[in-house]
Amino acid sequence: MKQLLLIGIGPGDPRQVTYEAVEALRRATVFFVLDKGSDKDELVHLRRAILERYLPEGGYRLVQVEDPRRDGQAPDYVGAVQDWHAQRAALYARLIEDELGSDDIGAFLLWGEPALYDSTLRILDLVRERGLALALQVIPGISSIQVLAARHQIPLNRIGEPLTVLPGRRLGEQSRIDNVLVMLDGQCAFAALDDPQLVIYWGAYLGTPDELLVSGPLQAVKARILELRDEARRRKGWIMDTYLLRREE
Amino acid sequence: MKQLLLIGIGPGDPRQVTYEAVEALRRATVFFVLDKGSDKDELVHLRRAILERYLPEGGYRLVQVEDPRRDGQAPDYVGAVQDWHAQRAALYARLIEDELGSDDIGAFLLWGEPALYDSTLRILDLVRERGLALALQVIPGISSIQVLAARHQIPLNRIGEPLTVLPGRRLGEQSRIDNVLVMLDGQCAFAALDDPQLVIYWGAYLGTPDELLVSGPLQAVKARILELRDEARRRKGWIMDTYLLRREE
Repeated sequence: MKQLLLIGIGPGDPRQVTYEAVEALRRATVFFVLDKGSDKDELVHLRRAILERYLPEGGYRLVQVEDPRRDGQAPDYVGAVQDWHAQRAALYARLIEDELGSDDIGAFLLWGEPALYDSTLRILDLVRERGLALALQVIPGISSIQVLAARHQIPLNRIGEPLTVLPGRRLGEQSRIDNVLVMLDGQCAFAALDDPQLVIYWGAYLGTPDELLVSGPLQAVKARILELRDEARRRKGWIMDTYLLRREE
Repeated sequence: MKQLLLIGIGPGDPRQVTYEAVEALRRATVFFVLDKGSDKDELVHLRRAILERYLPEGGYRLVQVEDPRRDGQAPDYVGAVQDWHAQRAALYARLIEDELGSDDIGAFLLWGEPALYDSTLRILDLVRERGLALALQVIPGISSIQVLAARHQIPLNRIGEPLTVLPGRRLGEQSRIDNVLVMLDGQCAFAALDDPQLVIYWGAYLGTPDELLVSGPLQAVKARILELRDEARRRKGWIMDTYLLRREE
């Protein structure tokens, strides 16, 4: 049985880490850092900064590997994601098998919250299907959604009203938007909406020193968000953003 | 300008508190503890335990007041909640005015995440509308939803599919349930569903020593959840639970 910890480390600010996560960091002996390639090197540095802050004495091994890339142009989105997950499962199975001894405790440091828009749990299910026995423990972490709400000082839900959380590519098909939180919207689906009653609360690089925030009536601030987003993306080489759309009567 | 911190302290386990929340606790000079009456005394004790753990040297003032109760039988739910919020706003305004000097920093210790199913932000908006100037800072916290997912080791969202978060009273009106997270369901709305494809992941008192967990096909485990829930509620005098309903094909 291989021991693995999935540790939610929050959105970037080392102070937005829980005591439980730090206890888990201190139990781990091997850290798997799966890198998305050079344009996101900064995320690897941020992870190392968290390790150095909470484990100044070292005493662990860091296994750093480049994650396979997903085919972003594939016409079948769900199929492409599943293929990508299968490739990652093969890689993770090999890493766990090779790098984790019987006395080791392995750990994945996951941005934000392990249960929200992170695929590690799904990939480890595939690793189990390949026949590897895993004992998992999941440690919750602060998600960028929570930092978005904290910075804009808004509740995510309104009284008695549902909140819908969805990826950007599903936004266009919503017949009505009352209170929708959008993740992973590389295509800026909000820009295509022309409903004058919508208000947006937007944030990028939440919890990091590069944090950007804009809020206001969607039609009034849309251009400003697109501009800030483009400029930041050019400057840093990558962007992570999220937003809440809300109908105000 | 009155200085106020809204600090998310997680669902009950003092280890599920962030370093940022503890820094905020250490800045605060006055804590407002709004008690829901004797049946939830335990929640007041848990809050005090968090203060004692992270502020062993004391040096703060605790202002403990009984929160007005909401009329749970009112036919107009939204109206009843708004009336209740107005009463609470009057109380909070008085407390802030009377108890917070110009050098003080006040704090509300909020269970879970301040932006999810907590009304403090809304009430402080009403306090501002009454003419009191407030400088707020919101500190995110781990929500019981996140502990639910961590314990059951499931992602909250599935690939490319929306997640809907709603209160129990809105569950019955959903035309189709694919992936729905239910909060505040005192009436056990899940018990009325007879769809054989639904799977439930349920948890109560998440993050506390009384934690209860059940998962499985809804029709197979429904009776067990109702029984556990009744028994725990009788024993403790209160219950807080949440669950995810998911369609499995």
